[in-house]
Amino acid sequence: MTNSVAPRADVPSKGPGIADRNTPFLRDYWYVAAFSDEITRTPIRRTILGEDILLYRTQDGLPVAMQNRCPHRSFPLHKGFLKGDRIVCNYHGIEFNPDGSCGHVPSLGTAPPAIRLDRYPLEEDGPLTWIWMGDASAPDYSRLVRMEWCTSPQWAFVKGAMYVKANYLGLHENLMDLTHFLFTHGKWNIVKPEHILDRPVLKEQDDMIVQEEVHENAEPPAERMEKLGMTGPFTMFVSQTVKIPGLHQGLTRTTDNSNPPKQDVQHIIHILTPETANTMHYLWAIAYDAVLHDDTFANTMQQVGAAVFEEDKVVLEDIEEVYRRDHRPDFREKIIRTDKGGIQLLRMFSRMAAAEQESALVP
Amino acid sequence: MTNSVAPRADVPSKGPGIADRNTPFLRDYWYVAAFSDEITRTPIRRTILGEDILLYRTQDGLPVAMQNRCPHRSFPLHKGFLKGDRIVCNYHGIEFNPDGSCGHVPSLGTAPPAIRLDRYPLEEDGPLTWIWMGDASAPDYSRLVRMEWCTSPQWAFVKGAMYVKANYLGLHENLMDLTHFLFTHGKWNIVKPEHILDRPVLKEQDDMIVQEEVHENAEPPAERMEKLGMTGPFTMFVSQTVKIPGLHQGLTRTTDNSNPPKQDVQHIIHILTPETANTMHYLWAIAYDAVLHDDTFANTMQQVGAAVFEEDKVVLEDIEEVYRRDHRPDFREKIIRTDKGGIQLLRMFSRMAAAEQESALVP
Amino acid sequence: MTNSVAPRADVPSKGPGIADRNTPFLRDYWYVAAFSDEITRTPIRRTILGEDILLYRTQDGLPVAMQNRCPHRSFPLHKGFLKGDRIVCNYHGIEFNPDGSCGHVPSLGTAPPAIRLDRYPLEEDGPLTWIWMGDASAPDYSRLVRMEWCTSPQWAFVKGAMYVKANYLGLHENLMDLTHFLFTHGKWNIVKPEHILDRPVLKEQDDMIVQEEVHENAEPPAERMEKLGMTGPFTMFVSQTVKIPGLHQGLTRTTDNSNPPKQDVQHIIHILTPETANTMHYLWAIAYDAVLHDDTFANTMQQVGAAVFEEDKVVLEDIEEVYRRDHRPDFREKIIRTDKGGIQLLRMFSRMAAAEQESALVP
Repeated sequence: MTNSVAPRADVPSKGPGIADRNTPFLRDYWYVAAFSDEITRTPIRRTILGEDILLYRTQDGLPVAMQNRCPHRSFPLHKGFLKGDRIVCNYHGIEFNPDGSCGHVPSLGTAPPAIRLDRYPLEEDGPLTWIWMGDASAPDYSRLVRMEWCTSPQWAFVKGAMYVKANYLGLHENLMDLTHFLFTHGKWNIVKPEHILDRPVLKEQDDMIVQEEVHENAEPPAERMEKLGMTGPFTMFVSQTVKIPGLHQGLTRTTDNSNPPKQDVQHIIHILTPETANTMHYLWAIAYDAVLHDDTFANTMQQVGAAVFEEDKVVLEDIEEVYRRDHRPDFREKIIRTDKGGIQLLRMFSRMAAAEQESALVP
Repeated sequence: MTNSVAPRADVPSKGPGIADRNTPFLRDYWYVAAFSDEITRTPIRRTILGEDILLYRTQDGLPVAMQNRCPHRSFPLHKGFLKGDRIVCNYHGIEFNPDGSCGHVPSLGTAPPAIRLDRYPLEEDGPLTWIWMGDASAPDYSRLVRMEWCTSPQWAFVKGAMYVKANYLGLHENLMDLTHFLFTHGKWNIVKPEHILDRPVLKEQDDMIVQEEVHENAEPPAERMEKLGMTGPFTMFVSQTVKIPGLHQGLTRTTDNSNPPKQDVQHIIHILTPETANTMHYLWAIAYDAVLHDDTFANTMQQVGAAVFEEDKVVLEDIEEVYRRDHRPDFREKIIRTDKGGIQLLRMFSRMAAAEQESALVP
Repeated sequence: MTNSVAPRADVPSKGPGIADRNTPFLRDYWYVAAFSDEITRTPIRRTILGEDILLYRTQDGLPVAMQNRCPHRSFPLHKGFLKGDRIVCNYHGIEFNPDGSCGHVPSLGTAPPAIRLDRYPLEEDGPLTWIWMGDASAPDYSRLVRMEWCTSPQWAFVKGAMYVKANYLGLHENLMDLTHFLFTHGKWNIVKPEHILDRPVLKEQDDMIVQEEVHENAEPPAERMEKLGMTGPFTMFVSQTVKIPGLHQGLTRTTDNSNPPKQDVQHIIHILTPETANTMHYLWAIAYDAVLHDDTFANTMQQVGAAVFEEDKVVLEDIEEVYRRDHRPDFREKIIRTDKGGIQLLRMFSRMAAAEQESALVP
């Protein structure tokens, strides 16, 4: 790194009312803490919204999330060990129950109520384990998204995870503007040049935004079309349903020229969990409900997904490096028409963060 | 590192009146600069209390400590070379005498009095070389601790040194609460579970604090007891005599059931020399006055000491990482009864730092 | 690194009116962006005065410098690709002409005037490509130095480049005080002890300063003197012509005892281009007009130059580390008589920076 100066908080990167890295994180929401299979009897640490969080599973298989910091002397508890359902600190041996209460302080022979860990409500939904980052006593389950593919045997999926050294809002924008596929992901031929001139339709509702577009004469993978008995020309309906703060439910529905048309549906799920203002956990999954038991297809899909989204990670980290390196005074990013969805989303973030900050002030 | 934000100075980690990483260092005191055998005719650098210090030995064997920064163009003098008793800067060749005065400026052909190095009073006491970090013209020798084992042929000792990436006060607390032996050092079976319920007695006096406790049915190493002709049951008297700011004189006195009882005494010495608010030099020694010429015992003792205290280093660095990583608002560490000695010590640090700051303001 | 605290801006390192790392960079001046052969059809990035700059060459061979940051989403353009004379962003495919104007936004099908890159006037002069860091619409060519050796076939040269993790003003001082040759470069026997007592003559004019001195009984490389038919005793005239902000034109003219005297002239050119307050690009060249086609001489000269100037890099980085590490309160570097040229230069920097800051305020 050539330059240690951080981006300046006083220069909004795109303009007033548009969220950027200086916008406070939204707290009264569900984020994906981890893929469920990452949470086991071996405790792990995950930092989310700047909080160091301990994740493990009880003997009965329930996932647990608590502060990863012993309230006594700040030891990181994931470096302790499990004793039944309790996590034991490896410094002075203090034991904590899965509800955050103290189970035992060996040197006192008691379990004082004042010694306790913040706990975080979790909701396991198939491969995803969601965490509520707001008031632990009042998780709002109406804000939780349950997706059919997560639990239905009608669906198969592949998945992957990356650690990205960049602010998460950049990935939100990336996902709202599919025109970058022609360049960043150009070698995959996923999008045709004429498609980037299609203008998506946007619908906003509460903490959700939906962006839809239709590509005529799409070119889905020939092998899969053949396997599904679908014949061109193909039309591809593409939508992004974004649930703030961290979920993009992408959908591609390919239809052929049969009558009635056959169709192939894929959910392309992107999960953005901020770690800090400069880093994020990026999880993704691709779910499909046809030809479920085809390992070759699944492996290819997983490998292509990992390779394509890695390209986004590189772009976002390159941009983060520019933020650190370039101290051009008064620089403000330009907004163009194809940023409409991304900017609308960032405006929602800005409004929701302001509302949350204000409501926190009221009492 | 996932997070570059430093711990917040405005959140006292344990509460008002209790020293933490934001408490100014004490200056009018002696610290151990280095083990004496580290100070040789090859100049070295050591940063202490945020000052870069040069250490070397004159031709007559006297240790020298001066600022490691040429007053002319800030070159680090330990990268120069010795010419007799003088250190020569490797940039423009300026020579300095061991008293800090300039010996020669080659390009001037003179030795201007204005060109000089801060020097630091040193006091060599056997294996330890102490440095006075206050006003160099008025070192207070009454604040210097001389320990018999350092120079008496009646005593043998083993020793070791570590660089710890953590604030030194955490190690002070660690050493005042031996209950962590059962967990952090659990595999060594040094402490029995019932011992951590023993309550130490505390005595405070000026810049010292003494903590004493007695463990019945102790289990000292059987081989050593046999060699000393001691037979159980054994009683172990354990004390920590802390001389602020950086010396813990631990003592273990094991007595057997003979009449009169035989005893085995060991001094376990911990030396804490802050480098910065986030780093320290940690030196230790174990001294004993029986079976002095037993290389096997000495080697084992050195290896066990190094391994045990390395475990503390890991704990302290893990905690330092939590400080960097976890931005939990309003987090304040909880104090329990077994922290009594540590907290009393931190209160003394806080009072003494405040007094030193105030006395610096008076004129 | 043991200490993350930056040097304090409130302690001028040498005193008021003397430029230091906190002095703003001069902007309305030419700096060397790169050696001309570094600028090719493969785009590169170079950070200069804290601005991330893209460098490439058009199909006609003209060098281009523009901001290396797509105005749309901050992607670093050197990671894009060239399409004819245009640079294409690898995120959303936006194309830019060499004058900074937008050539094409694929997703819009247009080239909006608002989308544009800052461009930087360049002036290629043989091996050096200069960049104007002030107002791009008004480069002041009177401030550009053209050196005969750069383009004349009468001259040959060798050259090298280094990345130095230190503020550039330290190198300016280094170059103004040749007494350090006896120490930092002592093993090369370039300077004799009596030479460092010679007092150079200084002349100042606008943004230039000239320092001259004469060394009697100099000891130039015997092999070269023999090849040139020159016989001792030798006299060496040494001068530094400094053009602020980043050019030192060193000159050595060795004369022998013939009548009229034969002479051997070498230009020793140092180019200092600040990257950040803590880092710089250091380019150097040695030019000569006798025995031009001697590969052995050229190779030796290049190797010696690289080795000698590497010694300066080490010194400057060591000093930079002291700045980071040593928090000695109120430390201020001492000035001695042989610093006269360097300090006079730093005073000029200070005055010129103040004037530039003031003129920027006037409107």
